[in-house]
Amino acid sequence: MYRTHTCGELRIENINQTVTLSGWVQRVRRLGGMTFVDLRDRYGITQLVVDEKAPEALKANIEELGREFVVQVIGKVLERQSKNAKMPTGDIEIDITEINVLSPSEVPPFTIQNDTDGGDELRMKYRYLDLRRDAVRENLVLRSKMAILTRNYLDSMNFIETETPVLIKSTPEGARDFVVPSRMNPGEFYALPQSPQIFKQLLMVAGFDRYYQIVKCFRDEDLRADRQPEFTQIDCEMSFVEQNDVLETFEGLARHLFKEIKGIDPGEFPRMSYAEAMNKYGSDKPDTRFDMIFNDITNIAKGKEFAIFNNAEYIVAIKVDGASEYSRKQLDELTKFVQKPQIGAKGLVYVKYNNDGSIKSSVDKFYDNDDLTSWAEFCNAKPGDMLLILSGEQTKTQLQMCELRLEMGRQLGLRDKNNFKPLWVVDFPLLEWDEDTKRFHAMHHPFTSPKPEDIGLLDSQPAKVRANAYDLVINGVEIGGGSVRIFDSQLQSKMFDLLGFTPEQAKAQFGFLMNAFKYGAPPHAGIAFGFDRLVSLFAGLDSIRDVIAFPKNNAGRDVMNESPAPIAQEQLNELNLQIVKQQKEA
Amino acid sequence: MYRTHTCGELRIENINQTVTLSGWVQRVRRLGGMTFVDLRDRYGITQLVVDEKAPEALKANIEELGREFVVQVIGKVLERQSKNAKMPTGDIEIDITEINVLSPSEVPPFTIQNDTDGGDELRMKYRYLDLRRDAVRENLVLRSKMAILTRNYLDSMNFIETETPVLIKSTPEGARDFVVPSRMNPGEFYALPQSPQIFKQLLMVAGFDRYYQIVKCFRDEDLRADRQPEFTQIDCEMSFVEQNDVLETFEGLARHLFKEIKGIDPGEFPRMSYAEAMNKYGSDKPDTRFDMIFNDITNIAKGKEFAIFNNAEYIVAIKVDGASEYSRKQLDELTKFVQKPQIGAKGLVYVKYNNDGSIKSSVDKFYDNDDLTSWAEFCNAKPGDMLLILSGEQTKTQLQMCELRLEMGRQLGLRDKNNFKPLWVVDFPLLEWDEDTKRFHAMHHPFTSPKPEDIGLLDSQPAKVRANAYDLVINGVEIGGGSVRIFDSQLQSKMFDLLGFTPEQAKAQFGFLMNAFKYGAPPHAGIAFGFDRLVSLFAGLDSIRDVIAFPKNNAGRDVMNESPAPIAQEQLNELNLQIVKQQKEA
Repeated sequence: MYRTHTCGELRIENINQTVTLSGWVQRVRRLGGMTFVDLRDRYGITQLVVDEKAPEALKANIEELGREFVVQVIGKVLERQSKNAKMPTGDIEIDITEINVLSPSEVPPFTIQNDTDGGDELRMKYRYLDLRRDAVRENLVLRSKMAILTRNYLDSMNFIETETPVLIKSTPEGARDFVVPSRMNPGEFYALPQSPQIFKQLLMVAGFDRYYQIVKCFRDEDLRADRQPEFTQIDCEMSFVEQNDVLETFEGLARHLFKEIKGIDPGEFPRMSYAEAMNKYGSDKPDTRFDMIFNDITNIAKGKEFAIFNNAEYIVAIKVDGASEYSRKQLDELTKFVQKPQIGAKGLVYVKYNNDGSIKSSVDKFYDNDDLTSWAEFCNAKPGDMLLILSGEQTKTQLQMCELRLEMGRQLGLRDKNNFKPLWVVDFPLLEWDEDTKRFHAMHHPFTSPKPEDIGLLDSQPAKVRANAYDLVINGVEIGGGSVRIFDSQLQSKMFDLLGFTPEQAKAQFGFLMNAFKYGAPPHAGIAFGFDRLVSLFAGLDSIRDVIAFPKNNAGRDVMNESPAPIAQEQLNELNLQIVKQQKEA
Repeated sequence: MYRTHTCGELRIENINQTVTLSGWVQRVRRLGGMTFVDLRDRYGITQLVVDEKAPEALKANIEELGREFVVQVIGKVLERQSKNAKMPTGDIEIDITEINVLSPSEVPPFTIQNDTDGGDELRMKYRYLDLRRDAVRENLVLRSKMAILTRNYLDSMNFIETETPVLIKSTPEGARDFVVPSRMNPGEFYALPQSPQIFKQLLMVAGFDRYYQIVKCFRDEDLRADRQPEFTQIDCEMSFVEQNDVLETFEGLARHLFKEIKGIDPGEFPRMSYAEAMNKYGSDKPDTRFDMIFNDITNIAKGKEFAIFNNAEYIVAIKVDGASEYSRKQLDELTKFVQKPQIGAKGLVYVKYNNDGSIKSSVDKFYDNDDLTSWAEFCNAKPGDMLLILSGEQTKTQLQMCELRLEMGRQLGLRDKNNFKPLWVVDFPLLEWDEDTKRFHAMHHPFTSPKPEDIGLLDSQPAKVRANAYDLVINGVEIGGGSVRIFDSQLQSKMFDLLGFTPEQAKAQFGFLMNAFKYGAPPHAGIAFGFDRLVSLFAGLDSIRDVIAFPKNNAGRDVMNESPAPIAQEQLNELNLQIVKQQKEA
């Protein structure tokens, strides 16, 4: 038996017991004639002690220990003379009589502790060592906990966990599909699913009523920002439901997770239309931990000598509470911030409503005190506040102001990671116009149902049609989204038509779903949560990478095992494939 | 709201309530002026009734219903005049006042009932309709139940559910790997995992201590018998454990499933060495629901005029209880059975120990009554029993007798699907000799640890070395297997050497695992259960296909959505791939 207890388990009650522990050597300290060893496993750290008077053989063994050696020790639990209240095992230590080195260790390339000295790349290469650090492992333990809480919640609500295939049909539209050549079917390919969308809808046609799965999905695309080629979804679908049923069920799931993991009740989740979210926050995933909502001052700020405003389609102000003392330097930096290429504003206007009641603005050459006061009043500013103003084409300016608002929230400490503000965003547009292809795309996906009251607009004003689609947003992060689905073949055909599919293309791509709908499809709706994102939010992390055991880097590479990699010519032959040699670009 | 209740929910207590139900039309019957409709959903069937005196509009609507229409009805719960005790809702019916057709249905290609008229292929093509049948859906519900029971059990034992990557490194040895070309890394490929073996061992190196996952695995191979290109494993690994710890933990899991799902306690699982299993049953996965164990009569059956026995390496008899009255015709058929090419015996010898004490045998020309009596005694036969005897080369004859034994068990009704006999088979050989490549292969995998007491034989008699490897067998089906792993780099190098890897090949293929072992690997061991197989065993099914929502056929094809399929030339271009045209074989 390798151990009688774990390294996190022994307490003052265990005194005088003889125990066997196994674990990793965290550190060895010598103090006078005594040697102390911190022995670590997943469950904690226990202090071992070897006395000056210990047998020479034992002392010699201890001498040989290095960091990260795996050892087994036998000894007696003693009460510590100087207790450590910070450690659960801090009341005791083990007076060891025997030590066996199970595995020696080379000196690890970085220290295995929370404030490690290892850089990102090194830690990725030695991921199995990075995972030894408490902080990293705890993220994965959190993930495991959230998964089982989710499953038990959905199971208790009668959802059937159903595995859908990973090797699915490749579609002509699947430009971002990973494909898998089939050895048994030469020249043919499977695709890996970007989501189990069609299968879960088929399960509804099959009468499964409630389906869920925590499932890997795949997308072969440039991994900007915080994406992974494989990612995990909590994927669900329900029959005989309306939008509100889905929202209530999954708000229930989210509240359950908040309660069980964080011990908090975030209250009922507000619901906000897409239009309101765009108007108030310039974003369909607003961070509602703080207000600083948009004030459209287009109408009151025009008509003076300031050409920039006069020529602008849209002028928007946010009121920053208590920021009237922002320095010139700070304001210059904010201007630089909005002028960054990825934000792209031309400039930034401020209005300071000073504590003494006076008003100071970067445009007071063009606007008198009354003008500026009327802006401040419009924005409900009080002395001590500051307005920040951007102008230009409406959509672009909204996006710019959204970034500025988030930056101000950050600067003022309004985006506390331990404060959770969930929000349902609803009534998304059904379609969005794509300038490149000069046609409409489905904003959610082609199976999303228009709102019944907007169906009349499908022919005349398609851009105005709202969808029964919804997103769950928490702290400005889109956690998940879904929609009520079309279950009527005729309406579905009309949608394909609007999206520019010929009937033949629609048939080639979605034929088997359309066929299924001929045999009695129930009304149904669903949702998918990004599980990586949800866990990273709960863990207070900015990146999903830290909640994935073996993540890939921005180039889709696993630097630990050096994949992807070339394959053998025989494998290519068996697959009837040949690699086309590329000219390296200069 | 589409429904106030499901179709399986209403009882006598609900009488006089007005309810809304939604579901599929199972059937419509007219009886005098009354019309009865069976409305079906996942939860049950409820009888609807429309009276002769109902409004004409309602009667007209009912007239239009066809099988599998999806409808919503509103009506009042009435007590039935003729109750149906076989249905949970059989005490009531709904007197409907309103019916809305939510989706019409074409006439389905086969009947949606347990004794369907649809053939296998048709049901695969319309899998979403086949899944509507109770018998099929119940298998998937069972799967969902077994998954969550498994997860909660392992979670309660401190296992961390950890997702391992699906896009992994392709290895030169991975002849059966599915590969995935990387768009971002031209000419390079990921592979899909045949199992998460290396990752779970890395998690042990990472100190996760206990890992589990219910995980999809992939194998691109001929799908003989009952295999699927993607299949699901309950995959586990534990640190600081010995073989017995793993066996006890997973015996606990299996017993938990038997108790919760089947309400039975199969008792402690016996353990049998591989050698004993081969000697007694000619199989490493014996069906122990019945005895009929092998009797090696080689020594007592030689030395007479019967050349076949005299020349045989091995002569084996099974005693079939109460089969002395088997007819000539039955015995001829058994002979034909063992002579089938896939079994390949030359002939079959019988010895009938008749009820009157006389003995009759197909070889009584060569053996006198005393000879045959001594065989019968050796096999513990009593009057009324029969011996069946095969002979030849030992390994082949064992396999043949194994098939004959299973057939006799089947004929005598000894293989009851509701009788579960689990068994641990242990002490597998570490290596098996491969005649084709003239070298040893790892019987389990290259990381399996030899039994410590056999390590001395590694150089001198490698074929005799037993491994710390184990299989769970239930009713002759291999449910899972695993092993104690090597965690010592030197022993691992020796294993690679024995398996014919050069150090360079070992490094290329397993280098990152070997590197990991340099930094303190704990002793560890693991196991994986075939989840599809386990569910099909619990469901009493012969094929895993019926416990998979969307299975593929023997050619690896999904006939419902017609995958795999060709992909567009642009996709191939983006992947830098080209399909090599094949000459069709004549």
